[in-house]
Amino acid sequence: MNVVAGLPSVLHGVALCSSLDLMFHFDEAFQAHAPELSVLPPERIGDPDQVSFALSWRPAPDAFTPYRNLRAVFSIGAGVDAILACPSLPDVPVIRVEDPDQAHQMAGFAAFHVLWHHRNMAAHIDAKNRRAWERVVGGQSPKRKRIGVMGFGLMGRAIAEGLSALGYPVSTLSRTPPSPPLIGMEHLTADEMDLFLSQTDILINVLPLTPETEGILNRACFEKLPRGAALIQMGRGSHLIEEDLLAALDDGQLSGASLDVFSAEPLPAENPLWSHPRIFMTPHIASTPEPAAVVRSVQNGLKELLGSAEKPAPAPAPR
Amino acid sequence: MNVVAGLPSVLHGVALCSSLDLMFHFDEAFQAHAPELSVLPPERIGDPDQVSFALSWRPAPDAFTPYRNLRAVFSIGAGVDAILACPSLPDVPVIRVEDPDQAHQMAGFAAFHVLWHHRNMAAHIDAKNRRAWERVVGGQSPKRKRIGVMGFGLMGRAIAEGLSALGYPVSTLSRTPPSPPLIGMEHLTADEMDLFLSQTDILINVLPLTPETEGILNRACFEKLPRGAALIQMGRGSHLIEEDLLAALDDGQLSGASLDVFSAEPLPAENPLWSHPRIFMTPHIASTPEPAAVVRSVQNGLKELLGSAEKPAPAPAPR
Repeated sequence: MNVVAGLPSVLHGVALCSSLDLMFHFDEAFQAHAPELSVLPPERIGDPDQVSFALSWRPAPDAFTPYRNLRAVFSIGAGVDAILACPSLPDVPVIRVEDPDQAHQMAGFAAFHVLWHHRNMAAHIDAKNRRAWERVVGGQSPKRKRIGVMGFGLMGRAIAEGLSALGYPVSTLSRTPPSPPLIGMEHLTADEMDLFLSQTDILINVLPLTPETEGILNRACFEKLPRGAALIQMGRGSHLIEEDLLAALDDGQLSGASLDVFSAEPLPAENPLWSHPRIFMTPHIASTPEPAAVVRSVQNGLKELLGSAEKPAPAPAPR
Repeated sequence: MNVVAGLPSVLHGVALCSSLDLMFHFDEAFQAHAPELSVLPPERIGDPDQVSFALSWRPAPDAFTPYRNLRAVFSIGAGVDAILACPSLPDVPVIRVEDPDQAHQMAGFAAFHVLWHHRNMAAHIDAKNRRAWERVVGGQSPKRKRIGVMGFGLMGRAIAEGLSALGYPVSTLSRTPPSPPLIGMEHLTADEMDLFLSQTDILINVLPLTPETEGILNRACFEKLPRGAALIQMGRGSHLIEEDLLAALDDGQLSGASLDVFSAEPLPAENPLWSHPRIFMTPHIASTPEPAAVVRSVQNGLKELLGSAEKPAPAPAPR
């Protein structure tokens, strides 16, 4: 893009994040794969007016203020809520990095937890520790566990496809149904949520966080699931009312839960989720962006965004 | 099949198994789905000469002796070795029950254990028990773990397809390569086993048990894997030299193993596998036959086998 006299000029970007060292994770990949892009941390930016894009994740409230010529903000995560809520965000497109690899990570992680609950793997670990051969035959068929995937973006789609490939019946819930529908799945929309929940034995949440979805995993939701259902929470921490989950586990309405995201992260040591025996907890690692995929996605996003205004010069002819 | 004057006659079968109550598992399904078949345990067979097929799994040495008019033996499991080795087996076809549901069960089970090893799930369980938020970012991409599936029948294929859908690079090893090859997989044959092992980070065994494959999971095999590889053993117990596995785990050549089958089942309480911290053990439950699928498969097998000799009469016209 923006090529002058055969030499590519450089587009300047800034890495804005309050909780992760973005440069540590992505610098090497940008240098290796995107010589036409320069991404620096704020303290190394000489002239903020030259910065035309930001790479961001959980920005500080005033993070965007110095950059008056921003044309785009790239979110390295699927959850853009913190960027959208940032008071200093200018009126520019916020682009989710599209990382098919990260979607696969989510799909594998979801498959693991579906099997963990369906096949009662905790009981096998326990039996092994007692040197007990406890063979129970029956109920192993994936047909017996109906999976409900709530949220159907890049992540939800990969999760649904992965579980479908493993023989599980999958329903999805989204604002609008995908067109065309995916073979072998049932697609329901937000107004059919009660039906969706009533036929879901294992509920997987990958909704985006919005005012409508905040606290959506609550007591009323759990009570609409079949008794003994399981929850796999891979969305955003604020989707879940944690005390409602503990109550549903304790009264048997839910048989188990896998949690990767939390209302507070790191989760404070005194939080009662830690000690519940039927919760499988992971520290927000269901997926992490692959540096090379992030770079590719930023390149593509910039090309699409700036392409019409600043056409790249034709590539030099091969010698 | 074998219809006389519009009334279907009944084909008689016997259930022969020394270790499972086959009638308990399959009687209901035969009664519900196959009124044209009568399957009984040996003690309820009036005239053994009327028995034309057997349903079997680990038969006793003399199990087949009384049945002189057997035309087929159906194995309810993918592993037919015990039937083929039975001294009283007559010279009739031994037909593996083809159960796509069981193949899906294997695929889900394999996916679980791939994620268990790849994503180091044991460490997350341990961290939770210590209320420790230990977030390690990086290495989550399925692209980083090369899966090798050894054995490519119905089970191996389902496993390979499931893991491929989750983004893992998959190689398969079989006597002859599938034709056409599956998209995105590398198919190797038995003479390329060293190459196959050298590029396998997680080895999944679903080979049949034959004189050539007995003890194939041994020290030499483990040493050809990259250091730190993991083993998922879902084949037959006699594929594995158990002491070689323990040695490979203890010297770090293997990072972990999942075992579902054992040289002796139930595994004796004094066996050292029980106490190894890096072994995930399950009591031969990776998959179990679904009764309805078994019945369907027996029906299809009998139709194919007897169809040419005894054509079914045309179905009566709908009234």
